[in-house]
Amino acid sequence: MREITIDQLDDMAMGAAVLGTGGGGNPYIGKLMARSAMTGKPPVQMLSFDELDDEDLVAPTAMMGAPTVMVEKVPSGEEIVSAFLALQELYGRPFRATMSIEAGGVNSMVPLTVAARLGIPLVDGDTMGRAFPEIQMVTATLVGVKATPMALADDKGNSVIFNTIDNRWTETFARSVTVNMGAAAYMSNYVMTGKQLKEAGIAGTMTLIGEIGRAIRESHRQHTDPIRTVLDVTHGYAVWTGKIADIARRTVGGFARGTAKVEGTGEYAGRTLEIDFQNEFLIARTEDEVLVTVPDLITMLDAETGEPITTEDLRYGFRVVVIGIPCDGRWRSAAGLELVGPGYFGYDVPYVPVEQRFG
Amino acid sequence: MREITIDQLDDMAMGAAVLGTGGGGNPYIGKLMARSAMTGKPPVQMLSFDELDDEDLVAPTAMMGAPTVMVEKVPSGEEIVSAFLALQELYGRPFRATMSIEAGGVNSMVPLTVAARLGIPLVDGDTMGRAFPEIQMVTATLVGVKATPMALADDKGNSVIFNTIDNRWTETFARSVTVNMGAAAYMSNYVMTGKQLKEAGIAGTMTLIGEIGRAIRESHRQHTDPIRTVLDVTHGYAVWTGKIADIARRTVGGFARGTAKVEGTGEYAGRTLEIDFQNEFLIARTEDEVLVTVPDLITMLDAETGEPITTEDLRYGFRVVVIGIPCDGRWRSAAGLELVGPGYFGYDVPYVPVEQRFG
Repeated sequence: MREITIDQLDDMAMGAAVLGTGGGGNPYIGKLMARSAMTGKPPVQMLSFDELDDEDLVAPTAMMGAPTVMVEKVPSGEEIVSAFLALQELYGRPFRATMSIEAGGVNSMVPLTVAARLGIPLVDGDTMGRAFPEIQMVTATLVGVKATPMALADDKGNSVIFNTIDNRWTETFARSVTVNMGAAAYMSNYVMTGKQLKEAGIAGTMTLIGEIGRAIRESHRQHTDPIRTVLDVTHGYAVWTGKIADIARRTVGGFARGTAKVEGTGEYAGRTLEIDFQNEFLIARTEDEVLVTVPDLITMLDAETGEPITTEDLRYGFRVVVIGIPCDGRWRSAAGLELVGPGYFGYDVPYVPVEQRFG
Repeated sequence: MREITIDQLDDMAMGAAVLGTGGGGNPYIGKLMARSAMTGKPPVQMLSFDELDDEDLVAPTAMMGAPTVMVEKVPSGEEIVSAFLALQELYGRPFRATMSIEAGGVNSMVPLTVAARLGIPLVDGDTMGRAFPEIQMVTATLVGVKATPMALADDKGNSVIFNTIDNRWTETFARSVTVNMGAAAYMSNYVMTGKQLKEAGIAGTMTLIGEIGRAIRESHRQHTDPIRTVLDVTHGYAVWTGKIADIARRTVGGFARGTAKVEGTGEYAGRTLEIDFQNEFLIARTEDEVLVTVPDLITMLDAETGEPITTEDLRYGFRVVVIGIPCDGRWRSAAGLELVGPGYFGYDVPYVPVEQRFG
């Protein structure tokens, strides 16, 4: 059992945005939400997987929608608590804790707001080890855990409970309703027992994002190379350096979709990298070669500060370093690649682990 | 208390299709469903509003979607029972009876299948006095009854519970999910106490549809004019006679939308009537004048048999009589016209009661 206090939020939101791989929501918004919920409350207790009883119920909480919309529509925090409570009522017994579905600037912070507001613990883990755009894309799906019953709520007071035969149907229905709700909604789903979570979850994610954020902050204080620092703490690889030459972005079907073009500089001069995204970065490639694809993490760092840049913050002229980070090993299984590999997103390219190309 | 037996289904489905005003589902499909559910079961008990206790809960049941799709995707009846039971579980006490939301070839029969399968009574009434395309378009909305909690289920085993702040949001969310479900889904909503229903409902609809159907059948047996018969029993007006010259139909946003053109014959020769529909017929007009609009009922009858024709059955060359039937008086209030008048459907024409134009 450890504690999370307000003074850790900066580091955690920053680190979460590194694993958010361009999506997962704006860390500034996430931090604002968490700070507001935690102010005047005791620290949030954090439980490791080992500290959960097998029978405990854990209900993850998250925002759903296009991260670009979340910036214009800052949530009050009430909505996500109401989704959590609606689901708890359905289960008819108290949830022991909440947790993150994914690592991301907003979605690592959302469960903190729930924990703080309700005075319940947060579990140190998630179910992606990064951010992904769709509901079924969690390690829990790989071991047969169902997304439903799932509660979805909006800021107007509407809520919906889904019960689906598989997790793809959950995504289909919930995405439609999220679009109706204004492309940003609040969900609680993938309720797991402690026993299930130990098998289905990724342990230690909250600790990791805090460490990543702290490393970046320390590198500033100590004037060491922040890019090198991020690569060290994430076991990542620098795959490109350049300048944002173009960014096309649109909200389609409840997702932020688009492509960023990064004009190479230094050793990459004369070539252009294209990175497609669906909330999160999916594939980074030049005219001749594919550098990194899902499920490995593609993250853009500010070349000077090493701070992660989400798709909604990308602007023409930004100088960036693109890094690739190996994903959790479970995503590299046949079932994992079927769920979140390049083929699922419509790219007819083989998945090659980033460390094979750059290691 | 009266009983409904299988030998009444032909009349009821036929009469329901007259009030279905082109939509409300195919009466043949509705009849098949009801017959299959009622076979080998005791007759369905029918309760008038007066026979309900004030505290009884009544849960209407219906299909939702594009009637044109229902023809290709005949429901088993399990889906609608599962929607009803899901809602009953949520309320935590038995529903006394089910009933029709609307009069229509399918939606007058669906509650009969639920009543027969579960051995519960059917209430003799509905909440439209006709069919309308959207969820909020019920007399219950006019007196503040909420559509939610509402259960929606599909034929694959998926189900969704909605809780919305108003009935327009119910329509928005449920329509999206219905489209995802293949444009045909099964719902239970507008749960009312006996007391609420007495204020909010339209009494006697099931009896009326049986009478309309029987009158048509009798006119065949007695070789009397079937058109005149329908007009008498519905208090309607013949507004046009002609031949279907064109029918444009598409499934858009979960609705069957389109326009039918009826080339005038006899006294209408040389002119063409256009009738737009969104599941149900909305407006009947010539180049010069509007003949009938919602909320009054526009129904097309086979010129020879007097049998109603739904939009999915309309074919080039059919000889038809178009009739207008006065709607329930509540639809003519300011609030009623706001909910279901021509303006709501995008027609900038005043509502003129059909009996003012043709009486």
